[in-house]
Amino acid sequence: MNTRGEFGFIDFIQNHFPEPDNIKGIGDDCAVIPSGEGDLLFSTDLLMEGVHFLRDESSPEDVGWKAAAVNLSDIAAMGGVPVATFLSIALPKDAQGEWAERFIEGYAEISNLYGVPLLGGDTTSSLRDIAINVGILGRCASNASLMRSGARVGDTIYVTGPLGDSAGGLQAILKGISVTPDVETLRRRHKRPVPRVDEGKLLLSTGKIGAMMDVSDGIASDLRHIMKASGVGVAVELDKLPYSPELLSVCAEYGWNKYELATSGGEDFELLLTAPEGLEKSVDIPLYPIGKIVAGEDLTWTIDNEPVNQDFTGYRHF
Amino acid sequence: MNTRGEFGFIDFIQNHFPEPDNIKGIGDDCAVIPSGEGDLLFSTDLLMEGVHFLRDESSPEDVGWKAAAVNLSDIAAMGGVPVATFLSIALPKDAQGEWAERFIEGYAEISNLYGVPLLGGDTTSSLRDIAINVGILGRCASNASLMRSGARVGDTIYVTGPLGDSAGGLQAILKGISVTPDVETLRRRHKRPVPRVDEGKLLLSTGKIGAMMDVSDGIASDLRHIMKASGVGVAVELDKLPYSPELLSVCAEYGWNKYELATSGGEDFELLLTAPEGLEKSVDIPLYPIGKIVAGEDLTWTIDNEPVNQDFTGYRHF
Repeated sequence: MNTRGEFGFIDFIQNHFPEPDNIKGIGDDCAVIPSGEGDLLFSTDLLMEGVHFLRDESSPEDVGWKAAAVNLSDIAAMGGVPVATFLSIALPKDAQGEWAERFIEGYAEISNLYGVPLLGGDTTSSLRDIAINVGILGRCASNASLMRSGARVGDTIYVTGPLGDSAGGLQAILKGISVTPDVETLRRRHKRPVPRVDEGKLLLSTGKIGAMMDVSDGIASDLRHIMKASGVGVAVELDKLPYSPELLSVCAEYGWNKYELATSGGEDFELLLTAPEGLEKSVDIPLYPIGKIVAGEDLTWTIDNEPVNQDFTGYRHF
Repeated sequence: MNTRGEFGFIDFIQNHFPEPDNIKGIGDDCAVIPSGEGDLLFSTDLLMEGVHFLRDESSPEDVGWKAAAVNLSDIAAMGGVPVATFLSIALPKDAQGEWAERFIEGYAEISNLYGVPLLGGDTTSSLRDIAINVGILGRCASNASLMRSGARVGDTIYVTGPLGDSAGGLQAILKGISVTPDVETLRRRHKRPVPRVDEGKLLLSTGKIGAMMDVSDGIASDLRHIMKASGVGVAVELDKLPYSPELLSVCAEYGWNKYELATSGGEDFELLLTAPEGLEKSVDIPLYPIGKIVAGEDLTWTIDNEPVNQDFTGYRHF
């Protein structure tokens, strides 16, 4: 039955709706809608029990934190300012009391930390699985938001922090690895991701960014979105990716492939961006150069300038 | 575990978030957010397989239609103009091909009919149940949108069309009643509700409306929202409710209680509003007076001016 795959299905959807002239729609981190006071940004994410979280493995507070965090990250990815969120939640009978309230406490914790009000939503019952949808509204100056389509040949590709920690944390949870301090750091990076909202605003303010997005499916998948939207190729130096000491130590202990985790695991929610070389020297946030935008349409991986034959793909839902 | 019930849980949520001064938030059909070009309206609805629809009983096209329709109805309920929708959908393996595409066709049919673009969303997999969340953005002139809090003592209560058809159609489906033309009309009212967008705009333009909302949980529940938000009581004449000939005929045949269906069934998506007496004579759309806004905090039901002792409650998810 699965004839098109997730991205084919998205194309199918786009073909059924004419896109209005002045609105940038499906396909970026947020839709961008011109308004009187600049542009409105809007994004939405659906989290399903059993796919995005397991009730046995994640505390309700962590699920609540992450549900808000991934949406804040979508606004960060445009360089925008979050304005409000909207929460829809479907609860089976055994989640309607304590689970739901603890979920709200985690959701409120990060929302209040970032000063973002909850302005609406929907509560309903569910037969079996918990379903959570968060919509987020943000703002940006007119035509200023940073899209996936802005990469230029010669740009350096940057990320704002270590890659692979979240995927390592998930693997540690799923495999039941015993919890050392290093493992706990990775687990926490998976359960309580930090959206780079201030970093996104600061990067936008430099006026130097080409393309920007957040690392949600892993750079192996995410970079392909930039390539497609910008009409460019990409060359990544795998040995230049930022790996946390905790990831390196856990990978060494269990023989995990750090390249695989860092490129294909996803959910790091760091920012992935392109800019002229040297940007890292003029901004006051961590920026790690990981490769170059090149002409063509290929994505190449190197280690010590030697091509790597392995193909990394990133996470797809179907 | 279910200690608070659905509306108690909503209160619990509200208590965890300070509401900003200039924004009208949780509790109406839409959140109302001041913006440079008037007010933004936003609403979101989550539909779960097994709760809101059954795969065996509803065509994917009908589910797609209804998912968009209920959100358009939320904008209609404020007197607003729909601008765009955002669709999140979680699909188990056996719904990822044909089901999903036919769903999109129904969603696109009503969206294109109302001229409302789809501007973003999320596609993901699901373990078991299909989950569908639609967010909708609308606009309204500043401070013009029609809230639940505007009812005044002495106002007449109106609805824009027959009540109970959708609930009758659902009952016919669930009981497997044989499909006559009358039954088919009710089934269709359940599966393909018509959002009253033009009616909502026209009503707003009269400048005479007190409170307005759409009939989603049944007037027995919906009127209580107006009562709470406006600080008023309500007196409804059950014999004045508009019943369709099809509902009367099917109720007669199967011995169903038309009052129960019309007050507690919900999902009619007609508009429910209050205005000074006589409004029905000055507007060019159907408007049925069904009762009065009164002082106090009681909801009373009468038939032929005689009090009815039965208590109708409307639909609650938990």
